[in-house]
Amino acid sequence: MRTVRARISYDGSRFHGWQRQDGFASVQGAIEDGLASLLDTLVTVHGAGRTDTGVHALGQVAHFHVDTRLDDDRLRHALNAHLTDGVVIDRLETCRDDFHARFDARSKRYLYRVATTRFRPPFLRHHQHWVNVPLDLERMRDAARRMVGRHDFAAFGNAGSERKSTVRTVMGVRLLAHRRHFAVVVQGDGFLYNMVRNMVGTLLDVGRGRREPEDVDLALQSGERDRVGPTAPACGLYLARVLYGEPLFRGPCGGPGGAAGLFQG
Amino acid sequence: MRTVRARISYDGSRFHGWQRQDGFASVQGAIEDGLASLLDTLVTVHGAGRTDTGVHALGQVAHFHVDTRLDDDRLRHALNAHLTDGVVIDRLETCRDDFHARFDARSKRYLYRVATTRFRPPFLRHHQHWVNVPLDLERMRDAARRMVGRHDFAAFGNAGSERKSTVRTVMGVRLLAHRRHFAVVVQGDGFLYNMVRNMVGTLLDVGRGRREPEDVDLALQSGERDRVGPTAPACGLYLARVLYGEPLFRGPCGGPGGAAGLFQG
Repeated sequence: MRTVRARISYDGSRFHGWQRQDGFASVQGAIEDGLASLLDTLVTVHGAGRTDTGVHALGQVAHFHVDTRLDDDRLRHALNAHLTDGVVIDRLETCRDDFHARFDARSKRYLYRVATTRFRPPFLRHHQHWVNVPLDLERMRDAARRMVGRHDFAAFGNAGSERKSTVRTVMGVRLLAHRRHFAVVVQGDGFLYNMVRNMVGTLLDVGRGRREPEDVDLALQSGERDRVGPTAPACGLYLARVLYGEPLFRGPCGGPGGAAGLFQG
Repeated sequence: MRTVRARISYDGSRFHGWQRQDGFASVQGAIEDGLASLLDTLVTVHGAGRTDTGVHALGQVAHFHVDTRLDDDRLRHALNAHLTDGVVIDRLETCRDDFHARFDARSKRYLYRVATTRFRPPFLRHHQHWVNVPLDLERMRDAARRMVGRHDFAAFGNAGSERKSTVRTVMGVRLLAHRRHFAVVVQGDGFLYNMVRNMVGTLLDVGRGRREPEDVDLALQSGERDRVGPTAPACGLYLARVLYGEPLFRGPCGGPGGAAGLFQG
């Protein structure tokens, strides 16, 4: 028995989220089914974090325990051959037995992708959010800076969340703009349910003049949900990277995975 | 009554090709339906060329005759609002009455997009072809150069084509490579049915060592279909540009259209 960790890309439009659910196609279920058919045994796959229906991943991390003579490269290759379309294991390596994809994660980086073309883009409609009102990126950058730091993000978590503490540290919020598209990149040590999408929804409200950058301060101070913009749609969101206290996947890669297909230069 | 020409992008995976067919979603049908619902009259839309099921466009050109007080910009905006998802009018302008999108076209440029990642990319599966064998791009460039010029392309046209002459001029065939992706760009004064996909299939055969670059010369000389590779799948093909003897669409654009969403840098 050995512990293996994997870096996974997936097209969230094809799955009802990460977590296995009876009767719905999930990413966890797809990988577990692939392992079951490959190794003829039941394996539980532990992801670094759940993603909701429609949310994509360019660098989800998961670990699982397997008993096989296949080396890492062959295991990755065979497993990919057993996976349904829309999910791929980009990297895979045997790791220390006590590695845990979720508990060992120090931070996560998300990317949120927005098109600001005048007309709805014919391509990628499930892979970016489209906003057709003018946005003031400098106002959004002002608001983004106010989100950085250790704060009580209660206002940015959706009601019904069962987490006890709502304090999180956001290391950075960046806006990368390119012509009629931009991406919001958020890195934090943890996120409340829908927190990234609520942060993006707030930035979009600020950008179109519905809210002031100072509303971010008020939201963080008061914890009031109504200081925050609407939850931005799932289709724009990508789990881009999970970071650990140790470097992962330093071996030869065998070519970029699925991310490259969408984000090639 | 005025004549209007339009530049159109569409996601071919959502349509059964350009040409209107009863009972199937077509791009021509979508635009004609949009015009019918906007202007309450039947309008025929004439495209520069038909594209098959699954083939995309970044710059299809079409013309039609309308009787409306809407100026060009308002007409484009209103028409886009009446179009189904997956097709967008990027540019639109009133033109000389006798402009004809098909008969006036001097040449067309197609783009064929291939991913060469080791594993099937989870994104864009209907928007690029995936090849997971090593390809020798220099051999492919050698073969590509042999396709350029005025030749009898009978071997590259699929059987059943009713065109009389099979002589066409190909102005250029370029391979643009970027890491694990490349695009073949082909420009010509006209193309036989499936000619671009057969050219790409031949290049891929050469790249993987199944054929020699010299086979292109033999195919052009002999006209024998078995000198040519298999038809490459529709999903990788984009009608990128239609070129005329006059510059089209020189006015303000109002933002890049759908192409930018897929090919942003």
